[in-house]
Amino acid sequence: MDVSPRKPPGPCAVVIFGATGDLTKRKLFPAFCNLARDGLLPKDFALVGFGRNDMSSAAFQKHMGESLAAYATDCSLVGECKRLVDTASYLKGQYDNAQSYAALKAFLDKTGKEHNTGGNILFYLSVPPELFEPIVRQLGEAGMLDEKDGWRRVIIEKPFGHDLESARALDQALKHHAKERQYFRIDHYLGKETVQNVLAFRFANGIIEPIWRNHFIDNVQITVAEELGVESRAGYYDQTGAVRDMVPNHLLQLVAMLAMEPPASLAAEAVRDEKSKLLSSVRVGRPGEGAAAYVRGQYDGYRQENEVKADSDTETFSALELRIENWRWAGVPFYLRTGKRMARRVTTVVVEFKAAPHVIFPTAAPVNLLKIHIQPDEGIALRLGAKVPGPQMRLAPVEMAFTYGDYFGSKPHTGYETLIYDALLGDTTLFQRADTIELGWRIVQPFLDNPPPLTAYAQKSWGPKEADALLAKEGRHWHSLDGRPQEKAP
Amino acid sequence: MDVSPRKPPGPCAVVIFGATGDLTKRKLFPAFCNLARDGLLPKDFALVGFGRNDMSSAAFQKHMGESLAAYATDCSLVGECKRLVDTASYLKGQYDNAQSYAALKAFLDKTGKEHNTGGNILFYLSVPPELFEPIVRQLGEAGMLDEKDGWRRVIIEKPFGHDLESARALDQALKHHAKERQYFRIDHYLGKETVQNVLAFRFANGIIEPIWRNHFIDNVQITVAEELGVESRAGYYDQTGAVRDMVPNHLLQLVAMLAMEPPASLAAEAVRDEKSKLLSSVRVGRPGEGAAAYVRGQYDGYRQENEVKADSDTETFSALELRIENWRWAGVPFYLRTGKRMARRVTTVVVEFKAAPHVIFPTAAPVNLLKIHIQPDEGIALRLGAKVPGPQMRLAPVEMAFTYGDYFGSKPHTGYETLIYDALLGDTTLFQRADTIELGWRIVQPFLDNPPPLTAYAQKSWGPKEADALLAKEGRHWHSLDGRPQEKAP
Repeated sequence: MDVSPRKPPGPCAVVIFGATGDLTKRKLFPAFCNLARDGLLPKDFALVGFGRNDMSSAAFQKHMGESLAAYATDCSLVGECKRLVDTASYLKGQYDNAQSYAALKAFLDKTGKEHNTGGNILFYLSVPPELFEPIVRQLGEAGMLDEKDGWRRVIIEKPFGHDLESARALDQALKHHAKERQYFRIDHYLGKETVQNVLAFRFANGIIEPIWRNHFIDNVQITVAEELGVESRAGYYDQTGAVRDMVPNHLLQLVAMLAMEPPASLAAEAVRDEKSKLLSSVRVGRPGEGAAAYVRGQYDGYRQENEVKADSDTETFSALELRIENWRWAGVPFYLRTGKRMARRVTTVVVEFKAAPHVIFPTAAPVNLLKIHIQPDEGIALRLGAKVPGPQMRLAPVEMAFTYGDYFGSKPHTGYETLIYDALLGDTTLFQRADTIELGWRIVQPFLDNPPPLTAYAQKSWGPKEADALLAKEGRHWHSLDGRPQEKAP
Repeated sequence: MDVSPRKPPGPCAVVIFGATGDLTKRKLFPAFCNLARDGLLPKDFALVGFGRNDMSSAAFQKHMGESLAAYATDCSLVGECKRLVDTASYLKGQYDNAQSYAALKAFLDKTGKEHNTGGNILFYLSVPPELFEPIVRQLGEAGMLDEKDGWRRVIIEKPFGHDLESARALDQALKHHAKERQYFRIDHYLGKETVQNVLAFRFANGIIEPIWRNHFIDNVQITVAEELGVESRAGYYDQTGAVRDMVPNHLLQLVAMLAMEPPASLAAEAVRDEKSKLLSSVRVGRPGEGAAAYVRGQYDGYRQENEVKADSDTETFSALELRIENWRWAGVPFYLRTGKRMARRVTTVVVEFKAAPHVIFPTAAPVNLLKIHIQPDEGIALRLGAKVPGPQMRLAPVEMAFTYGDYFGSKPHTGYETLIYDALLGDTTLFQRADTIELGWRIVQPFLDNPPPLTAYAQKSWGPKEADALLAKEGRHWHSLDGRPQEKAP
């Protein structure tokens, strides 16, 4: 993670594979535009689109401009942003065809010279995952991942395999053509401000770290809930399910950020080493508990969705109890839940603290909660017990909160800016290293192999009752995420 | 402090000495009215005014109604509040005349029977301090502090003496006529919600107490600043000065609430024992430092005020560095400052935490501050370092805050309600015990005996530069109290 005063990265070209695709249009173009606006793209820079569609560079520029008009929230196609569009170029090609790569190589040589990019190239694979291996193989065989004429980097975004075995196979294939440090595996959750702020929150504030441990924390609850169902992704999703889609990647990365030990520095490998160490201590449930720590749910009506099998056994909801077997976290359950068609779109971490060891107030003291809101409203809130005004000592919960938007203003961003910027700088901190991918799959693999039975849940709910029972068996409950502080003073 | 569900106290009469005075008009009538409104006065109750003015009970009721109309913020003279006024009565008398007390005794016997007050009487001495001793002596000699026919309590409000010796003499005189537990010495600061909330904040929240000690706290800054000058109190103030007026009472009570160990219970003597223990560990400055830990200031123009001596040496500003010699606070300076004609009317405690023991961020991490705002806007704010949104790891301070008014609505109160209610219940928790009064004077007495030279300060400032030097000599500074979070993100 870059920590110096803001500066643009060095000269380079970026090649987007899947240049006319949906992700590119909605996220990547706006992210590059925001970086250009903020002066965080190199002066010597070239953006090259590559794809199967037949299109001229002029048509590509027009497509890019139209995409920005539709999806960029703060881009008026002037200044640096206009220059970005005006200098973009496009090359048609097939993803698994050596001639296309020879053409690409020649095209990049020429473009690189025109734009003085120094031979540095970032390949952004904005394509379906089955194309990762062929594209990297073609790039490798064409010599384009060789770094003798400048750095070469590859961005890919999950899924990285669909289980432990396929993830290992993919990794092996990738490593055959380039080094680990050349791969930038995006977890777009790690591009979110609040997730990155977890590092600042924990390690820049002297008062947080002392209480960030099992002496003071009772449990941690992580919810990633979507209101939407499977929509247009039904075909893919029905083969994947909630666990594969969310747990080994987004949720476990979040767990790692929240729970890892302080890294020796902010250097990428120092941070990634700590995450890896943390994930290697994670297990699902307590020893011997097995599948009782895992709940699979499917929303009512899922099997009637288009492209979903009529007898589909795919889960659209998953809840797990994790344990982290180290000194800091022994005895503290991490409860994870994620699902579709839930009550509200929200991603929030709730850290529930233990009660004071001795309470002198005869009325119950409200539980201390720290809520890290990741979306939709990024911010942090702390719930404390306070005295209700009046002549008596009565306690009620109050929330101290700040939101990023209120505080810093809301400069629109896609969540990809930081990740692209870091990749251009060669900073791998926020990207997933191969070993953490594998560790993620190892944690969930037993449950992929022997899934417990599905349980049904109503749409617009917080999941099946079994997810509540998961906490209730130890006398806990999910803290409400229904809007603002749920308990106001009387 | 009462902790059970809200209930009115038992039957009693309240006698206000100085019934037509300013404090009575502005604070006591509105406070009794608010208590009546909230159902916190006994059903069997009598309010009796006593004073030197010639006035009928009807005229007193009229005066009370007019006072409420002028000063009560939420009283429309209906229901319980109207009943309170309609049943009030008045007796004229001299404060140091045995016949007047014989008359008062007869009057209270009669009124007590009419209102079924069970012989319980609270005497509220809303009179100048030189009258405390004569009134208590007369009450005692008339047998009215004898509790054989019901409880008898006396409320007095500071000043309790003007130095250690006179405070001891006053206490001795008071104790000659009644027991310690019959005296309710008001420090109206302790009636403020945020001050009382310090107890809840510290002891109801499991996450506060672990960091509330010298391992994590660097220093504590307490400011009681007034914009006003001495105004109509100039004659009194010029004989008193800022130290006597504020430090041994309000400021040290606040220090005691902030710094005492957890009491065994909320029982009055348990809390007061802890405060007393804490105050007995307080000294001004570090060993051998003496007057260097004490700054006296006088605002420019003070000597030109009416009733102020032209060569007055009285301080209108005082800053001190306290040390608390115990395990929890060793090495943590408590900086106190109070004055008149300052930049802003504000009473705030700022707890400055130590930086994280090792900072991995190359930019400085913002200092963690906890601000307890006591007036004018009661509330609590916590300053943390957070990541500034954007592709770089830059830190900026943010504040998480809650205010009592925003949270609980602002039911108007004078600050006296809780204190009067507690006195009616016989709960002495929030009142000053004789030993803490004496401890307060003992702490400041060396500086009253050998005051350092006065230093001048400009009106509308934060005091003389020597007050800044007091902190600067150890590399610290007063944190800004100029409005809302002083440092916004860039």
